[in-house]
Amino acid sequence: MLNTLGNLLSLTTFGESHGLAYGGIINNFPAGLAVDFEKVQYELDRRKPGQSAIVTQRKESDTVQFLSGIFEGKTTGTPIGFIIENENQKSKDYDHIAKSYRPSHADFTYDQKYGLRDYRGGGKSSARETMNWVVAGALAKQFLSDIEINAYVSSVGEIFCEKPYQALDFSKTESNEVRCPDAETAEKMIEKIKEIKKEGNTIGGTITCVIKNVPVGIGEPVFSKLQAELGKAMLNINAAKGFEYGSGFCGAKMTGKEHNDLFNEDFTTKSNLSGGIQGGISNGMDIYFRVAFKPIATILRPQESVDKDGNPVIVEGKGRHDPCVLPRAVPVVESLAAFVLADLFLINKTRNINNF
Amino acid sequence: MLNTLGNLLSLTTFGESHGLAYGGIINNFPAGLAVDFEKVQYELDRRKPGQSAIVTQRKESDTVQFLSGIFEGKTTGTPIGFIIENENQKSKDYDHIAKSYRPSHADFTYDQKYGLRDYRGGGKSSARETMNWVVAGALAKQFLSDIEINAYVSSVGEIFCEKPYQALDFSKTESNEVRCPDAETAEKMIEKIKEIKKEGNTIGGTITCVIKNVPVGIGEPVFSKLQAELGKAMLNINAAKGFEYGSGFCGAKMTGKEHNDLFNEDFTTKSNLSGGIQGGISNGMDIYFRVAFKPIATILRPQESVDKDGNPVIVEGKGRHDPCVLPRAVPVVESLAAFVLADLFLINKTRNINNF
Amino acid sequence: MLNTLGNLLSLTTFGESHGLAYGGIINNFPAGLAVDFEKVQYELDRRKPGQSAIVTQRKESDTVQFLSGIFEGKTTGTPIGFIIENENQKSKDYDHIAKSYRPSHADFTYDQKYGLRDYRGGGKSSARETMNWVVAGALAKQFLSDIEINAYVSSVGEIFCEKPYQALDFSKTESNEVRCPDAETAEKMIEKIKEIKKEGNTIGGTITCVIKNVPVGIGEPVFSKLQAELGKAMLNINAAKGFEYGSGFCGAKMTGKEHNDLFNEDFTTKSNLSGGIQGGISNGMDIYFRVAFKPIATILRPQESVDKDGNPVIVEGKGRHDPCVLPRAVPVVESLAAFVLADLFLINKTRNINNF
Amino acid sequence: MLNTLGNLLSLTTFGESHGLAYGGIINNFPAGLAVDFEKVQYELDRRKPGQSAIVTQRKESDTVQFLSGIFEGKTTGTPIGFIIENENQKSKDYDHIAKSYRPSHADFTYDQKYGLRDYRGGGKSSARETMNWVVAGALAKQFLSDIEINAYVSSVGEIFCEKPYQALDFSKTESNEVRCPDAETAEKMIEKIKEIKKEGNTIGGTITCVIKNVPVGIGEPVFSKLQAELGKAMLNINAAKGFEYGSGFCGAKMTGKEHNDLFNEDFTTKSNLSGGIQGGISNGMDIYFRVAFKPIATILRPQESVDKDGNPVIVEGKGRHDPCVLPRAVPVVESLAAFVLADLFLINKTRNINNF
Repeated sequence: MLNTLGNLLSLTTFGESHGLAYGGIINNFPAGLAVDFEKVQYELDRRKPGQSAIVTQRKESDTVQFLSGIFEGKTTGTPIGFIIENENQKSKDYDHIAKSYRPSHADFTYDQKYGLRDYRGGGKSSARETMNWVVAGALAKQFLSDIEINAYVSSVGEIFCEKPYQALDFSKTESNEVRCPDAETAEKMIEKIKEIKKEGNTIGGTITCVIKNVPVGIGEPVFSKLQAELGKAMLNINAAKGFEYGSGFCGAKMTGKEHNDLFNEDFTTKSNLSGGIQGGISNGMDIYFRVAFKPIATILRPQESVDKDGNPVIVEGKGRHDPCVLPRAVPVVESLAAFVLADLFLINKTRNINNF
Repeated sequence: MLNTLGNLLSLTTFGESHGLAYGGIINNFPAGLAVDFEKVQYELDRRKPGQSAIVTQRKESDTVQFLSGIFEGKTTGTPIGFIIENENQKSKDYDHIAKSYRPSHADFTYDQKYGLRDYRGGGKSSARETMNWVVAGALAKQFLSDIEINAYVSSVGEIFCEKPYQALDFSKTESNEVRCPDAETAEKMIEKIKEIKKEGNTIGGTITCVIKNVPVGIGEPVFSKLQAELGKAMLNINAAKGFEYGSGFCGAKMTGKEHNDLFNEDFTTKSNLSGGIQGGISNGMDIYFRVAFKPIATILRPQESVDKDGNPVIVEGKGRHDPCVLPRAVPVVESLAAFVLADLFLINKTRNINNF
Repeated sequence: MLNTLGNLLSLTTFGESHGLAYGGIINNFPAGLAVDFEKVQYELDRRKPGQSAIVTQRKESDTVQFLSGIFEGKTTGTPIGFIIENENQKSKDYDHIAKSYRPSHADFTYDQKYGLRDYRGGGKSSARETMNWVVAGALAKQFLSDIEINAYVSSVGEIFCEKPYQALDFSKTESNEVRCPDAETAEKMIEKIKEIKKEGNTIGGTITCVIKNVPVGIGEPVFSKLQAELGKAMLNINAAKGFEYGSGFCGAKMTGKEHNDLFNEDFTTKSNLSGGIQGGISNGMDIYFRVAFKPIATILRPQESVDKDGNPVIVEGKGRHDPCVLPRAVPVVESLAAFVLADLFLINKTRNINNF
Repeated sequence: MLNTLGNLLSLTTFGESHGLAYGGIINNFPAGLAVDFEKVQYELDRRKPGQSAIVTQRKESDTVQFLSGIFEGKTTGTPIGFIIENENQKSKDYDHIAKSYRPSHADFTYDQKYGLRDYRGGGKSSARETMNWVVAGALAKQFLSDIEINAYVSSVGEIFCEKPYQALDFSKTESNEVRCPDAETAEKMIEKIKEIKKEGNTIGGTITCVIKNVPVGIGEPVFSKLQAELGKAMLNINAAKGFEYGSGFCGAKMTGKEHNDLFNEDFTTKSNLSGGIQGGISNGMDIYFRVAFKPIATILRPQESVDKDGNPVIVEGKGRHDPCVLPRAVPVVESLAAFVLADLFLINKTRNINNF
């Protein structure tokens, strides 16, 4: 359904950057889950602004309030409504763009599509929307308690985490500001981001996500293959420019003989270039994928642009902005992955007559 | 909706490789289009086996028959049903895999998910399904007659078409067997595929797709952004491992200053690293994206594998298979792009009160 | 989804009265059901024309052919495609309405909505479409093998089956042409229909449907309550004018003291004015509902009407038509009920964390 | 989509009777509508408790707050989020039913389906949910400003408004507490309700809804016929037991010769037993339908019932309840009708190539 995430388990959301609140409705969440509210807020805190020196200094508490669907601490199977109030709105910071179009932002396309736009803070096109996704994903994670989902920053600009994910200790991801579990690489990334920030510039990068313990059978060919649903979710993240899973774009350079994953006698595979998915369905091996993020378009430097009438103007980012979206996007990637998996996990329960 | 392509304009399909027929239903296609049936069959012919020396020699006419929704040559607005009969089924070629699992195929995952599978020719997991998509896409192309959609093979293994798409003449794409509009590169690619074929091996590659003349405003944030819908469709193609649009994974290495697309006074942009999409909505510039394909898993050489009970077996591709999926995937990529665009194009018509 | 029946289990269909074929795709049907093909054809035969003296004498075999989704007699969990070819098309019978609008038919509305229409035999608006529904419902019935679904003709014109359903023996429904299990009433109904037929007239009536053994818990408030999904399905049947369940319109005359169903200690209820549904969810008691059908609009007598330009014309039903839709609609009502229940039954499996 | 109203224009909702708030998200509402907020609140006020002597005396302000999707008074085309806070919760009134099941309520079915329930005030099964629908419908009404939608109470118990709707002056509907535009009948109805209330009893009735000025072409056969979408929406209202349109159940007693609506030369029809819909599509004539409501199950008298373990208990309605749901259901019926029409109206815009 248009503007809804998920096929059975579903998330519908609302909110603009400088409106009164964000929020959403999670539908068809199974009844009976004892919700750990602190864990939900923990995920929001990982995403929120102002948490470290390398992210925007905007201050928001980003506190979620559940309004329905939970009774005496447990999900009731009815729609889970929630809101997150906006607090720290400096709408005046945006007066200068009411009639101007910032380069590589959605100002122009929103105006053209809808005929008007809430320009304050980017309005609907702001990445504050991803808060809603984190709330839904945090509940999905709790439902899928046996599945481990770990995302991390795998590159910032030209600095790559060269170690394969198998060599990383994900318990270290939260130990540094940039959320790269390899301490040495993390340090370089942080340094790079600080340098970029000083220039009033921004920088892109990639996030890798690894999912362990997914049971065999998750994914719905032909039009809701697991990789397609994961890819769609990730490509909806603001600033995402690409998605690859398993061998990805590297696999496109290989031959079949090199690329095929041979089976062991327990149906695990000797290699895993497939990335844990065969024919759109999980095969029990680790699922891993990578998302590319462009540098944030708002830079704190004057840029030539145009106004609504096509007249030349100079726009300059004001206010408090992220020099690099990556660290805060890590929980967003994990949340979307959790939600997509939970949706397909529920559906899979109905796919075989033996379950009835 | 699960197992449906599209949000308003929709395609539902059926068919297995060695079943009686493939087919589909296109719903909510606008009434009044005079269908050019030859153009539909032309697109199917671009996809069909046996068309050249570098694709599978399996012979199928792949003739589409429309059963409803078209009257006196025009679409009636009612569901368009169609079938494509299977003809050249050599099911015996597949007896050896009835109880064995081929490496990097979906045999194991289908068996686990559904408890049984039609193993003949890969059953539902066969890429013959993409015929259905080509039929739907061919109609979508005719509806979007002002929009130009051109896909081409941009790499085979390590051989890349180095020229930017702007330097290519798409009228040349069909002039060679591999569907790369650059003659020199095409020759190298064909040579490479022939060499790989001789070894009984297969090889991966990428397809680039360029879409011109898309009006501003197509795409539905927040969960049906144009790139997300395109990416989902492409990632559902058998063998697809990755999707990127605009600057893609390269953009992740850049800074905001380098990456931002500055406006001209007519609202075109000086550069187009955005790939024609801002905030999930088309901005009128060329849309371009790239899809990565792994090498086909069926190689004509013995491989170690396991049977249903986990016993070691040797499997060896028999029959007639593609050494490289790329040339035949070109019309599939174009078709999916056309269908996704047509769906979002219809929806966009309803997004502004001024249209009513 | 528009033009789709069902939320998870879904049916998409195509076909026009005088096109090449009808057909459909059943998606998300559970894998592993051993299909009884004769039972499917049996249901189609109950619906087909020419089966008795009181229905249309048009001859069609209405034979269904399954094209996919079933392997070695069992459903595979993949889309089930089927077609039913049209055979006995006398399109010339309809030349007279190519440019005229029959009273109380959909000729005018289709023309206005779509700008053109396949006028032969009513095109898409023909009740032959309900064949598709019977195929899907026949499979749903087999999936829900413990649930008994019995519809019957409960009134024809002013002739009512006065006995409550509890006093009827449903094994007698097929013992007469009109499908009313009460022999005495059936005789009167048949006589009435024959009389009406002789006049070239048609007559309306009602069908009652009783569903036993539905487990507690089926139905999805707030927007997919069981009665709402049943009602929607029934109101899509050609000629249906009303739907009521449980006490229905009679219940609207009662007081709460009279109407409330008191519980027994085993949670059955002493009365069942609720019709087996509380709050949109089945409560384990018999579900029963009634559907009103108007008299068929095609009468074999001259009627004043207008052509496309508003000029007066005389139209007169030619060919072979039903004097009363009721007997052939009985399997349609049962089929839709079965499909709706199967869909909600699948979904209910995912509503409680204890099922995982 | 499950738990969503509408196919393209969509409403998703949340809220329980004694939770913190109700609310919803309206998706795909066209951009550019100048919202009249007073009119929205006016519709809510027509539905709210405590407005007259014949409805519940519970006091709630039922004030809607819009949180997104509207900027400077106009819809922006982005999701419209809203909440209505619960104020006057006397949850203690419901302690007695925490473990008991009230007759003809959804206590038992919710417990069985979900394994737990928020019992306070009926939780999710409370008709307070319909507030959400009124908000959405009020916006839909403003979008469809040319269409007139008038519902009224057409019967209470055995007291019927005998005049045909054509003889009524809808501007009088709001002039009395029961919302019947015929003053004489209204008086009798009010008297009856007061009498019933005195007894601690409740009473059922019907609401008729008349829709004028619907353009030709609204409705989407075959599975989203206009009457089917209207019927589904109405049957989701708490206490609704039946739906009929046009001639309805009376039409089932008629012959074709009597029932057919003959055309005038301007394509209007001489009679309108069809109720403004042919083949599932509006034909430009008045649309009218009737909804049956059972008497409210909560009566202020002791009733025999059972607790969760099947032990006999006496339950007795406490607190403030409606003796008759009808007067407050009038705006709910209108709101759902408006929303369904607006959804199908948007979709119809995409059904013909000439609109592009």
